[in-house]
Amino acid sequence: MSSKPAIGFCGLGAMGFGMATHLVKQGYPVTGFDVYAPTLERFAKAGGTPSTSLSESAKDKEYYICMVATAQQAEQALFGSDGIVKSLPKGSVLYLTSTVPSSYAQSVEKKLGDVGRGDIYFIDAPVSGGAIRAADGTLSIMAGASEAAFEKGKFLLDELTAPSKLFIVAGGVGAGSNMKMVHQVLAAIHIISVSEAFGFAARLGLNGNDVREHVIGGKAWSWMFENRSVRTLKEDYFPGASAVTIILKDTGIITSMANLVDFPVPLCSIAEQLYITGLNKDFGAQDDAGLVRLWTSEPVASLAPLSDEDKNAKLELVSNLLNGIHLCAAAEGISFAKHLDVPLAQYYELCVEAAGGSTQYKEQGTKMIDILEGKQEQQGASLSSYRDGLKAAVTEARDKKIPLHLGNGALSLLEQAGKEQSLGSLLKLYSV
Amino acid sequence: MSSKPAIGFCGLGAMGFGMATHLVKQGYPVTGFDVYAPTLERFAKAGGTPSTSLSESAKDKEYYICMVATAQQAEQALFGSDGIVKSLPKGSVLYLTSTVPSSYAQSVEKKLGDVGRGDIYFIDAPVSGGAIRAADGTLSIMAGASEAAFEKGKFLLDELTAPSKLFIVAGGVGAGSNMKMVHQVLAAIHIISVSEAFGFAARLGLNGNDVREHVIGGKAWSWMFENRSVRTLKEDYFPGASAVTIILKDTGIITSMANLVDFPVPLCSIAEQLYITGLNKDFGAQDDAGLVRLWTSEPVASLAPLSDEDKNAKLELVSNLLNGIHLCAAAEGISFAKHLDVPLAQYYELCVEAAGGSTQYKEQGTKMIDILEGKQEQQGASLSSYRDGLKAAVTEARDKKIPLHLGNGALSLLEQAGKEQSLGSLLKLYSV
Repeated sequence: MSSKPAIGFCGLGAMGFGMATHLVKQGYPVTGFDVYAPTLERFAKAGGTPSTSLSESAKDKEYYICMVATAQQAEQALFGSDGIVKSLPKGSVLYLTSTVPSSYAQSVEKKLGDVGRGDIYFIDAPVSGGAIRAADGTLSIMAGASEAAFEKGKFLLDELTAPSKLFIVAGGVGAGSNMKMVHQVLAAIHIISVSEAFGFAARLGLNGNDVREHVIGGKAWSWMFENRSVRTLKEDYFPGASAVTIILKDTGIITSMANLVDFPVPLCSIAEQLYITGLNKDFGAQDDAGLVRLWTSEPVASLAPLSDEDKNAKLELVSNLLNGIHLCAAAEGISFAKHLDVPLAQYYELCVEAAGGSTQYKEQGTKMIDILEGKQEQQGASLSSYRDGLKAAVTEARDKKIPLHLGNGALSLLEQAGKEQSLGSLLKLYSV
Repeated sequence: MSSKPAIGFCGLGAMGFGMATHLVKQGYPVTGFDVYAPTLERFAKAGGTPSTSLSESAKDKEYYICMVATAQQAEQALFGSDGIVKSLPKGSVLYLTSTVPSSYAQSVEKKLGDVGRGDIYFIDAPVSGGAIRAADGTLSIMAGASEAAFEKGKFLLDELTAPSKLFIVAGGVGAGSNMKMVHQVLAAIHIISVSEAFGFAARLGLNGNDVREHVIGGKAWSWMFENRSVRTLKEDYFPGASAVTIILKDTGIITSMANLVDFPVPLCSIAEQLYITGLNKDFGAQDDAGLVRLWTSEPVASLAPLSDEDKNAKLELVSNLLNGIHLCAAAEGISFAKHLDVPLAQYYELCVEAAGGSTQYKEQGTKMIDILEGKQEQQGASLSSYRDGLKAAVTEARDKKIPLHLGNGALSLLEQAGKEQSLGSLLKLYSV
């Protein structure tokens, strides 16, 4: 018998499968539930114990991780008639690692009390980092819970993450989900910016491999670009690793919350309309990297490489586009975090190393936070190079009749920032 | 022989044909040039004199109207080797009624001097109002020129317009085109809002006839909605009356100028991306009312009518959507006009009666102008009902996975306008 405690797990999707099998590798006996039979078979082969019953998967498990796709699924899995909560032993720890509205995480805590299971230690612990890091046990995790819950259950979060990537967010249950949500502001904008950039580039005649090399090696880098572009170049969308429906769901959490608290998220809103457009084209179950097909039907890696002379000016336009978008995404994310009283230093540290990271965020994010926290008198360096770079890109796109939704959205923001063109004047657009 | 002077005319498209044949009906001998033979036949049947040579059409004509589609076409028609300018008699009046950048109109005036034809009286006189009003001689016309040019040539503008709809804009050549451009800010946003509204409505299950009746009879009215919806309901897009390429061209004039002078036009930019998307779907030569197909492939008039109970709440959401868009469009148009020193009272008067009109523009436009001109201490009534109406619409659209590009763009602006939710705080977003 293993010296490590038995773990119950529900939701063996791209992320969940990696997390659960990583725990198996660390020597935990893991009982995993999923609705999809082939996944259960794969899980058994990886050393896990498959289960076709939620209550079975939860029986006698002192630790249970729920990693389903949505709050609706979580509600059903946790509180359904054959659900998890009924079967968990007394004083067990329940982790909800799905991305859900913070209000939902809070409702779970309340409902546990309402159904007489206030004994369960509940940890609100959404994750970020993608399927590979899930399987490596190096995810970023944002967790909110009571001290008692962390005392009993933190060790398992440590197993799933690298030491510097576990963020205990002050504020209890809901604080983790809030942190995840503002992280996803960056993710939502960056993911579709990968497709917009590749689509723009392809329509300018650039080969996708040249685009990737240029972007990865420069200031236009983002974690999402580096990660998604591998699949864009291979057309690895069927199903790929992260479905359009997932980021659409996360974006909807952001825009719904923004509407609720009357906060402007113009770039997230643009991103949301594009994800919906992709869904309406039946791309929903496919990888979000495949949204490049909203711009071009040709495989981006199939274009004949251009001569260096031809290539360089065009690659520069692609960088301009991404730099401008990433800068404004940083302003939108940090401002929303501030508005929701999310601790900004922690938010910064988290995003820099997680899936929301970008060079622009890394370089300008601390300055933005200093301005918002009143630590910096000055309003930051001039943004006119970003604005002018975006203007060059959208002008070329206008001439070539290529839609640049995010690029134009970011340019509108920089133009609204007025003559001053400072980080301060950009942030003021979000100061409501 | 007619007692009225002979007129040369070039560009017998939807608008030009109406204008030229209206002059024929008024008793002018009109020689019309077009590149499309069937149009020339039609023109002959309507009593005009067709011509297949630009220089022929201009020979001995003391008055010449150029109504081609773009500045590029105008340049070729006016200054090409077999062009108009060479053939016009001394001291003739040349009217450019196409929608072109004001800088282009100014360049024509300069070039006339450069090629030794400074004797020609040049009038920059773009028009608005659609094909029917063109044929009725009741167009809105915005004209800029020298006093001498107006003295000699104004009578012909009077023929094409109703008395209250000729706007002589101070500032000489270019001023007419500038006025037209800021008018087109409204047109560009309103045209695509018709499709967004019908698409949203159809996806909610509303029959298009019910939508039209509701919108036309209420505060969500716009000239464009009333005009375009006739074609939307009949699917009269092939070619219909006003091609996507035309409004795309006009929108490009706006966004290019906005980039040049560093002014934000977020809603026009969103509209432009949608027109480009339509073009990329090969809708370019078809009527812009057909852009509803970006939202739904089903004919909007084919849906089974809903019961009154079901219908009313949904119709209200459609109105909310249009009201919010029209309000923000008014702010964008008026602010841009102010930025370009376009006379605001004249701009208001023009738009209210022209294709850019809307109930929101009519009701809120004067208040906006008073605020921008410092005539009003207060910042105007609360906009929270617009914001909340838009929130209801976009929330429904989010649930139903319907993209609302303009609706979300307008909502972002209203959220940026902050807690104050006043006309003043909305206009401040454009005060750069």
